[in-house]
Amino acid sequence: MKKILIINGPNLNLLGKREKTIYGSTGFGEFLETLRKEFSECDIGYFQSNIEGEIIDSLQNADQKYDGIILNAGGYTHTSVAIGDCVRAIGTPVVEVHISNVYSREEFRHVSYIAPSAKGVIAGFGLGSYKLAVESLLMD
Amino acid sequence: MKKILIINGPNLNLLGKREKTIYGSTGFGEFLETLRKEFSECDIGYFQSNIEGEIIDSLQNADQKYDGIILNAGGYTHTSVAIGDCVRAIGTPVVEVHISNVYSREEFRHVSYIAPSAKGVIAGFGLGSYKLAVESLLMD
Amino acid sequence: MKKILIINGPNLNLLGKREKTIYGSTGFGEFLETLRKEFSECDIGYFQSNIEGEIIDSLQNADQKYDGIILNAGGYTHTSVAIGDCVRAIGTPVVEVHISNVYSREEFRHVSYIAPSAKGVIAGFGLGSYKLAVESLLMD
Amino acid sequence: MKKILIINGPNLNLLGKREKTIYGSTGFGEFLETLRKEFSECDIGYFQSNIEGEIIDSLQNADQKYDGIILNAGGYTHTSVAIGDCVRAIGTPVVEVHISNVYSREEFRHVSYIAPSAKGVIAGFGLGSYKLAVESLLMD
Amino acid sequence: MKKILIINGPNLNLLGKREKTIYGSTGFGEFLETLRKEFSECDIGYFQSNIEGEIIDSLQNADQKYDGIILNAGGYTHTSVAIGDCVRAIGTPVVEVHISNVYSREEFRHVSYIAPSAKGVIAGFGLGSYKLAVESLLMD
Amino acid sequence: MKKILIINGPNLNLLGKREKTIYGSTGFGEFLETLRKEFSECDIGYFQSNIEGEIIDSLQNADQKYDGIILNAGGYTHTSVAIGDCVRAIGTPVVEVHISNVYSREEFRHVSYIAPSAKGVIAGFGLGSYKLAVESLLMD
Amino acid sequence: MKKILIINGPNLNLLGKREKTIYGSTGFGEFLETLRKEFSECDIGYFQSNIEGEIIDSLQNADQKYDGIILNAGGYTHTSVAIGDCVRAIGTPVVEVHISNVYSREEFRHVSYIAPSAKGVIAGFGLGSYKLAVESLLMD
Amino acid sequence: MKKILIINGPNLNLLGKREKTIYGSTGFGEFLETLRKEFSECDIGYFQSNIEGEIIDSLQNADQKYDGIILNAGGYTHTSVAIGDCVRAIGTPVVEVHISNVYSREEFRHVSYIAPSAKGVIAGFGLGSYKLAVESLLMD
Amino acid sequence: MKKILIINGPNLNLLGKREKTIYGSTGFGEFLETLRKEFSECDIGYFQSNIEGEIIDSLQNADQKYDGIILNAGGYTHTSVAIGDCVRAIGTPVVEVHISNVYSREEFRHVSYIAPSAKGVIAGFGLGSYKLAVESLLMD
Amino acid sequence: MKKILIINGPNLNLLGKREKTIYGSTGFGEFLETLRKEFSECDIGYFQSNIEGEIIDSLQNADQKYDGIILNAGGYTHTSVAIGDCVRAIGTPVVEVHISNVYSREEFRHVSYIAPSAKGVIAGFGLGSYKLAVESLLMD
Amino acid sequence: MKKILIINGPNLNLLGKREKTIYGSTGFGEFLETLRKEFSECDIGYFQSNIEGEIIDSLQNADQKYDGIILNAGGYTHTSVAIGDCVRAIGTPVVEVHISNVYSREEFRHVSYIAPSAKGVIAGFGLGSYKLAVESLLMD
Amino acid sequence: MKKILIINGPNLNLLGKREKTIYGSTGFGEFLETLRKEFSECDIGYFQSNIEGEIIDSLQNADQKYDGIILNAGGYTHTSVAIGDCVRAIGTPVVEVHISNVYSREEFRHVSYIAPSAKGVIAGFGLGSYKLAVESLLMD
Repeated sequence: MKKILIINGPNLNLLGKREKTIYGSTGFGEFLETLRKEFSECDIGYFQSNIEGEIIDSLQNADQKYDGIILNAGGYTHTSVAIGDCVRAIGTPVVEVHISNVYSREEFRHVSYIAPSAKGVIAGFGLGSYKLAVESLLMD
Repeated sequence: MKKILIINGPNLNLLGKREKTIYGSTGFGEFLETLRKEFSECDIGYFQSNIEGEIIDSLQNADQKYDGIILNAGGYTHTSVAIGDCVRAIGTPVVEVHISNVYSREEFRHVSYIAPSAKGVIAGFGLGSYKLAVESLLMD
Repeated sequence: MKKILIINGPNLNLLGKREKTIYGSTGFGEFLETLRKEFSECDIGYFQSNIEGEIIDSLQNADQKYDGIILNAGGYTHTSVAIGDCVRAIGTPVVEVHISNVYSREEFRHVSYIAPSAKGVIAGFGLGSYKLAVESLLMD
Repeated sequence: MKKILIINGPNLNLLGKREKTIYGSTGFGEFLETLRKEFSECDIGYFQSNIEGEIIDSLQNADQKYDGIILNAGGYTHTSVAIGDCVRAIGTPVVEVHISNVYSREEFRHVSYIAPSAKGVIAGFGLGSYKLAVESLLMD
Repeated sequence: MKKILIINGPNLNLLGKREKTIYGSTGFGEFLETLRKEFSECDIGYFQSNIEGEIIDSLQNADQKYDGIILNAGGYTHTSVAIGDCVRAIGTPVVEVHISNVYSREEFRHVSYIAPSAKGVIAGFGLGSYKLAVESLLMD
Repeated sequence: MKKILIINGPNLNLLGKREKTIYGSTGFGEFLETLRKEFSECDIGYFQSNIEGEIIDSLQNADQKYDGIILNAGGYTHTSVAIGDCVRAIGTPVVEVHISNVYSREEFRHVSYIAPSAKGVIAGFGLGSYKLAVESLLMD
Repeated sequence: MKKILIINGPNLNLLGKREKTIYGSTGFGEFLETLRKEFSECDIGYFQSNIEGEIIDSLQNADQKYDGIILNAGGYTHTSVAIGDCVRAIGTPVVEVHISNVYSREEFRHVSYIAPSAKGVIAGFGLGSYKLAVESLLMD
Repeated sequence: MKKILIINGPNLNLLGKREKTIYGSTGFGEFLETLRKEFSECDIGYFQSNIEGEIIDSLQNADQKYDGIILNAGGYTHTSVAIGDCVRAIGTPVVEVHISNVYSREEFRHVSYIAPSAKGVIAGFGLGSYKLAVESLLMD
Repeated sequence: MKKILIINGPNLNLLGKREKTIYGSTGFGEFLETLRKEFSECDIGYFQSNIEGEIIDSLQNADQKYDGIILNAGGYTHTSVAIGDCVRAIGTPVVEVHISNVYSREEFRHVSYIAPSAKGVIAGFGLGSYKLAVESLLMD
Repeated sequence: MKKILIINGPNLNLLGKREKTIYGSTGFGEFLETLRKEFSECDIGYFQSNIEGEIIDSLQNADQKYDGIILNAGGYTHTSVAIGDCVRAIGTPVVEVHISNVYSREEFRHVSYIAPSAKGVIAGFGLGSYKLAVESLLMD
Repeated sequence: MKKILIINGPNLNLLGKREKTIYGSTGFGEFLETLRKEFSECDIGYFQSNIEGEIIDSLQNADQKYDGIILNAGGYTHTSVAIGDCVRAIGTPVVEVHISNVYSREEFRHVSYIAPSAKGVIAGFGLGSYKLAVESLLMD
Repeated sequence: MKKILIINGPNLNLLGKREKTIYGSTGFGEFLETLRKEFSECDIGYFQSNIEGEIIDSLQNADQKYDGIILNAGGYTHTSVAIGDCVRAIGTPVVEVHISNVYSREEFRHVSYIAPSAKGVIAGFGLGSYKLAVESLLMD
């Protein structure tokens, strides 16, 4: 049974409560339940933090315990050399996801310090981006 | 029955013949067969051209005849305002895909004139990127 | 009797069918008829292609056969060194036109590789831009 | 009877006296007479100033009194956020004109703070640019 | 009794007449009256000009005659080295104000040649920015 | 009774102890007392942290519990996309303040990821900036 | 007997007819004859197209059939990621040539997307650049 | 008898009154007297304005009436395309002078729109820069 | 007896476990023991955290308790204005160290927000960098 | 009999001794002998120096004494305005050569201050670049 | 009796022999004689070298032996941090001169590493620039 | 017995004579004596030159004769591709040192063409930087 960890970064705990026109009205807890049902053949862990260093901690801890990591680092995607370094350092493959199409938003969201070390990037499919990411990890 | 068109841009006809360490040794024809079998519930068309304007032609022609388009514009991704304009102009949703992780390659490959008008972007999963793109179009 | 050739670039064949709020609902065929009637004292040719190189072919072919060329190169305006080279190489004067006011749109549309070699530029008057361009060629 | 105001910016009072190889040997007064004769169906006002703020004053005063404004802001085109703000603020449509083809000159002349708020831009047809601008305002 | 001078730059005389969704529908004259009533303990002078050099003149003249200057230089904020030089040269403290939040508008409005020499900056509170500026000068 | 929360970012706990020539010798605790006395008609909360994510936590927690937030994010102002995202996400208005005139300091302090989503910005009035910010929130 | 293919890009079919002061008055056909005579020990093929994608087609087709390719991509040199990708993908060595000294012309002609994947670059020797390129391929 | 006009731009009327550590304590009136005495063999006119357009007016008026112009455009040096255009348009040689060494000050003071069209540039010798400029005009 | 504190930033807890070809196979604990033995004449403290704000906390706490601080801020070196502000604010000298030669790696690692306020920088000597840093603090 | 001078810049005296995988194992002396034999119809001089100014000296001395100069300025190619000035000043044609393909190396090696004034550029053919350069000078 | 040293950099020994339309046909030796006659009240030394380091040597040697130095560093002006450092280090005032108006030439000639540490700059007056520089040193 | 060579670049011969507040009042000769005494177990050679190419010569000559080189290239650090090439070419390890903290000085001093090929960098410890560099070479 494959083990997958979803790590959500800053402000993603507001999902479903704020900026609904951009991010939709489904909370992540609710969505996670559906996701786990749909992919009952694998074990999906979850972690959220607004603190950059705690995301690094969780990436380091997940290493070797999980078969794959799905990382939505939110705003840290565009500024954190440290998270990018961590993704490169650990052995577990990391898939970078974004709910919105970051490329049709502000210029600074087109830059990612994580993508160069990630296995791949999926962006713009709403919460469906997470679903596609799970599938990408099951494909191997 | 949903209709999906895959459009491949320049040099993608060399797939499986050249630069195998980067792009793998499976030819696209072979892969397409597998893909069609796996997604027998939909009708998957295919078009490849090295000519920028023919890609525009095929996008315009596909409009309203297909439910979704999967576009790997190859090198034109990073230079073609004209293809980007076309994607914005037509009504059919377009998913941008890349076989390799373009973000871990040269700087000029981080820019996409297509992404801002695309529905979403999937990059870095080898030929699996096309499979994820089909799924993303079936999710709606 | 003066001979003038209008060359339209990529996506301009969609005129009147797509993005009507920006480009209006008149198709170019319909407009061309009106234009020819209004300027019955001159012979107005027409060519459209989505293919960059075919636009170059048509510019080369028009040289010496026409007294003036009206060129709306669409998205190629902002990326094509090759079309710009061609405009500089041929002897027939070329007027660059745009339907929309390209200067109030994205930054990359403010650059033109054609303008430095063109006789002049007319932008922002809807299909009227073509009419003004014809007049500019009759003024000499 | 339509009312149109031509506003000329800095150094355009030297027209016909200096740099004749670039700007021609016709003075603007002389040209204006011809223009008024040719377009006897409309009332063409004229204002020239070397002072940035007086150009703003005249734009504000012309608002609602004129049906259209033809503005050649000369060197201020490339540096004046304030004139650009004014053009955006007033209701009367403004057409930006240039005698020479500014795009074949220094890089800093390719930028216009006025164009994004203008109705359209006409450049490179000598004094004929003004004539085309009048026509563009009569087309509506 | 403290003496304060408010200097308004280009296009601010249009306040309340144009672009009401951005700048509101109150004219500055009307607002000034309210302001003077609210701060009856000080003497508030007023000057407006669309001409860059007249703003410099008024800053120089105000020096030593006023205890503080509130300057909204409009579009000149982003282009005028000369006004910035003047603010640095005179002894009276100058507070830079903006009605709108200039940082959420175009990139070129994020640059100020005045701010480095100003006492402070207040932006984004509508006409309330002027009120806060008066208070900031009374705080000393 | 209006509720206002002041959030101070990294190193602002050193106020009054270090770099006194720049930031003055008053500690923030001492100043806060004076501020609360002066604005006895409102309830002023306070939070300080050197940790980026804790600032995000406190912004999220303050949402709907407070009528306004005064945020001095210190060094994070210039680097944190995540805090900027949070300010945009929550409903409570946020006023960005700075003690020193950041615009007369290093280039990288002229950039703010928070300002575009803030209600307004007040900078350069020493601790008085906080006082003006309280007033700006009471103005509504 | 070594097989060499010369590929000429856009506008090079105008050689000898246009811009003679820059490019000389010899047509390429005439020159090709001389070249073939001088290098009778090898078989020199020729292809010209104004269409970017046809140049890619011809590069792909030449692969493995020719021992070396001489490519003057004209204006596409400076804009075509797709041709650059193709040169890297195929096995046959490609020598980039230019008739004029591109480094003494506009800034945008100093950039080449082809050169990094080419065997070498020869520029500025008129039609002699082709002759030197043939020699460079015979040297191996 | 040679006729020379000195034109001083914005804030130079403050000379000797403000920022004495940078610009010295001699007023320009006082200095002008000494200068006229030292160069009694020529007729030295003087004009000062804070208004960009008045400087252009005075340059145009001086043309053909004076043998040489000494221009210290102050802050306009670094922002005024219009003054630069005027210097290029008129026939009289213009020498650009600066009191301080502009190259040891802020980056934006290293750029001059006037210098490319000026006869020469003299900077950094205090009021002595004007004296050297007079000599440079007498050298011819 | 001199007191020195070593602060290690994000991912440095992975030392000796990951990316051994770059960072070597010695864990930091093991190395620290050797270091303490070699420099028995001083007291060497140690702190590691992946959290930016905790590094700031530890810098503030160390101030006045230690005679010198050796800081390897890892990825935060290149992004943290806040840590840089803290280093400038406290009185204890801080020596910036890096295990690898950051100048031969990616461009973004050439920038340091800490270096301008540090006492000095030592980079590229493996774990020996820490040893040299201790010596540099004992030299005073 | 034609006279040609080869000038080699810094570090080219290490050829054949260092970095053999890039530059090959042939020393320049050895190669020069072969070259002179192959082109016995011309007289080939040689000069090498690591000192920028001595290269300038040798270019000046060679002027009028030689019919052509082959210059490999090594690292000075990318930084020396002074050598570029010298190449432009002298009358003898100069061909710029490089052993390696500089366009596939670091970004700063893509810039040449010499190329704009050179007759042409040859790069990437190993020591064969010199041979092609001799031929280019014999072609005239 | 004042002692002045003129230092000329690379290629200035070609004066009067090459590029006469730009630099005139007078050799520097001839000019120096005239200069010494005209300023018989001072002792004018002279040094020329094409070697950057020898210019530094001569600046260091001149320090304290001369009352002023006139430096035309030619192409090194725009690239030499080392000469700039030297000018700042020594006590003797240095005046930077240029024969041509460097500001009307290539962009890279607008930058000077020497000017920020020089006493002043004189450019564009032909050999007269040296004469003005002598006068500027006698003015003190 | 290990052999180490110290190479000092331009202006470092002025040490102890000029700019004492920055560089201290100890001459390098005096310091060298102390250094040699302290490290009597190794043989420390010394070379200084203001000439870029002589530094390259000395690096090449030192290769294989010394076990390590300590290089302070002064101003050439930031401009010399040629010295950087040399450091990469030779086999002896080179440690880059700076007396002052170059990262707290002008922007152009933050760039080093030598650092990417050096073994490591030590900056900011006064003459102590050389001492640490010797130790770093003895550590191996």
